Amino acid sequence: MKVYLDHAATTPLDERVLQKMLPCFTQNFGNPDSPHSFGRAAAVYVDEARDTLAKELGAKPNEIFFTSGGSESDNWALRGVMHASKARKELLVSAIEHPAALNTAAELQKEGYTVRIVPVLPDGKIDMAALRSLLSENTALVAVMTANNEIGTVEPIRQIADAAHSVGAYMMTDAVQAVGSLPVNVQSLHADLLTLSAHKFYGPKGVGALYVRRGVPIGKIISGGHQERAMRGGTTNVPAVVGMAEALRLANAHTDENAKKISALRNAFVRRVLTEIPDVRYNGDACDRLPGNAHFTFDGVIGEALLFALDIQGIAASAGSACSSGSLEPSHVLKAIGLSETAAKSSVRFSFGKNNTEEEMHYTADTLKNLVAKMRK
Amino acid sequence: MKVYLDHAATTPLDERVLQKMLPCFTQNFGNPDSPHSFGRAAAVYVDEARDTLAKELGAKPNEIFFTSGGSESDNWALRGVMHASKARKELLVSAIEHPAALNTAAELQKEGYTVRIVPVLPDGKIDMAALRSLLSENTALVAVMTANNEIGTVEPIRQIADAAHSVGAYMMTDAVQAVGSLPVNVQSLHADLLTLSAHKFYGPKGVGALYVRRGVPIGKIISGGHQERAMRGGTTNVPAVVGMAEALRLANAHTDENAKKISALRNAFVRRVLTEIPDVRYNGDACDRLPGNAHFTFDGVIGEALLFALDIQGIAASAGSACSSGSLEPSHVLKAIGLSETAAKSSVRFSFGKNNTEEEMHYTADTLKNLVAKMRK
Repeated sequence: MKVYLDHAATTPLDERVLQKMLPCFTQNFGNPDSPHSFGRAAAVYVDEARDTLAKELGAKPNEIFFTSGGSESDNWALRGVMHASKARKELLVSAIEHPAALNTAAELQKEGYTVRIVPVLPDGKIDMAALRSLLSENTALVAVMTANNEIGTVEPIRQIADAAHSVGAYMMTDAVQAVGSLPVNVQSLHADLLTLSAHKFYGPKGVGALYVRRGVPIGKIISGGHQERAMRGGTTNVPAVVGMAEALRLANAHTDENAKKISALRNAFVRRVLTEIPDVRYNGDACDRLPGNAHFTFDGVIGEALLFALDIQGIAASAGSACSSGSLEPSHVLKAIGLSETAAKSSVRFSFGKNNTEEEMHYTADTLKNLVAKMRK
Repeated sequence: MKVYLDHAATTPLDERVLQKMLPCFTQNFGNPDSPHSFGRAAAVYVDEARDTLAKELGAKPNEIFFTSGGSESDNWALRGVMHASKARKELLVSAIEHPAALNTAAELQKEGYTVRIVPVLPDGKIDMAALRSLLSENTALVAVMTANNEIGTVEPIRQIADAAHSVGAYMMTDAVQAVGSLPVNVQSLHADLLTLSAHKFYGPKGVGALYVRRGVPIGKIISGGHQERAMRGGTTNVPAVVGMAEALRLANAHTDENAKKISALRNAFVRRVLTEIPDVRYNGDACDRLPGNAHFTFDGVIGEALLFALDIQGIAASAGSACSSGSLEPSHVLKAIGLSETAAKSSVRFSFGKNNTEEEMHYTADTLKNLVAKMRK
């Protein structure tokens, strides 16, 4: 049996999305910036994709910029806003941001900006009191992800945005894990910038978007032609933006239904793990959590070894994010919620998706139970 | 009749390339950085793609970095090398570079670097004497494209690289238009950095590569996870890199044959235009030229109007690059080769591809002849 429980790393492309993309590869192949008929035909698809994306996010089409994915979007948001900021030179980022944001913040610090790390509580929620004490009239931007990629905790973005706005700062949220799994609307979140990545919600890899609220000053990171209203050079990836829009439309049309199905499966799995396996800790917030995320610490078990054993049994799970795999460092997220290095290295993430079945869930729970028992001997 | 003569803007995806990509969308969909079986299966494809690309370019696999396309690669090469340069703060770029390079140079200038523009001769070839006089021990990098996207002129990259090296500078070449049309080998070019884009050689949009010779110091522009040896964050776009490698393999396996076929068609077209239409100027170098490129100035004709009329007859050509379409400025390339503003605005590019036919060529020549005559009345 092959069971994929790593949907936070990537998802399979939805067959219906692929069907929408196919005509843009070989037939409707024009460069949407070419003014001739081949180009105009492609431009129609691109415009439609932008309109769909904007509508699904509660944005205006000219607030949506297409990018190559979540990492580029995060880099652009942080560098772009900081470089465009005249008086304010401070950036606040949460301790549990994705490496795309944290490493960009580190580079900005090298350039001379002040970076302040906002701590989180043991459930992964932003420490609002700490955030408020760090905010000042020097704060240019506050960056907090909508939902964490490792432990699944959903953050109170609206509250954070309102706090940022109260000192005149902008608020950026990395919604890469949230979009497609939760209803995400820039108006209700009060966010000024938001990033997303299509392959996290059954869309294609290599494409994402950056939402920038009208009027927010932002620089570029990829200069070039007139594409994206002269803000991001590079021929528009027509099949990919078409696929991203269709994937988001499909995801949002079924958010409640999928969230219900996926969280029911996840909850049943968590219940089995917590009741049938001793000395397990369930990390993250119990309620405000991505529907598919389950994250555990198995005392006395080496996470990497457990993953390896699960893999042999056909089960794909993860020890943190794929983006930091290969790293010898324990997860910065688990450190931030107060786990010891040992506990962090005994942790495994299971992320469920819309195609997982009860049978797969039970097979995984059974296998996990056996493996943990064996490894503890 | 529909005739596509804008292959310099983009090319249709080769059906064989699409077939190679398809399994990576829905079945082999894993994140290649995930250590489980789904991830490892994807990683095999990515490694193969990198090996192929390296082999085709005469590089080592660890000298190849995957990007989202030519513009990102150009930005990365220029910003990356200049930011990593300790003592040398001067960047030399040719006057006919793509906006992705020229606009990046302009941004670097704003950051405090010195940018010097290397002029070209009337055929579009680099003015080597001028280049030599600009080179100094302050030069960090010389950027000259392998072949120009508007007028098709092929540059003496090896000579330019040797000149750069003689003062201890690095040499970067934007080979976006050349790769797939000409044999491009980093060893024979002596280039230290080279950029390419898959959709210019019948590969997918949204993917490109940057070659960086081992040992050349370079910074990042997209920080994030451990991807691309921690030099470029973002989940690897598996179907796209697989497609790019296959497209390059196919192109290089048939370079001579395609170049012969395409240039024969182009030459016949040029002959007809120059003999049958009066007051036409053929721009660019007559010999050292991309096989598919034909670029003319039709005295007394407004280029945009001619393109519009051609489009109505089903013929897709271009007034410069798609990346600068919509711009009211005359082409910087045509200005650099000495054309007046009026001449520049009377110019049209036809770029042939491997699927064009003699019938299409004659239809285009006939139509062009009629339209130019009508418009001059």
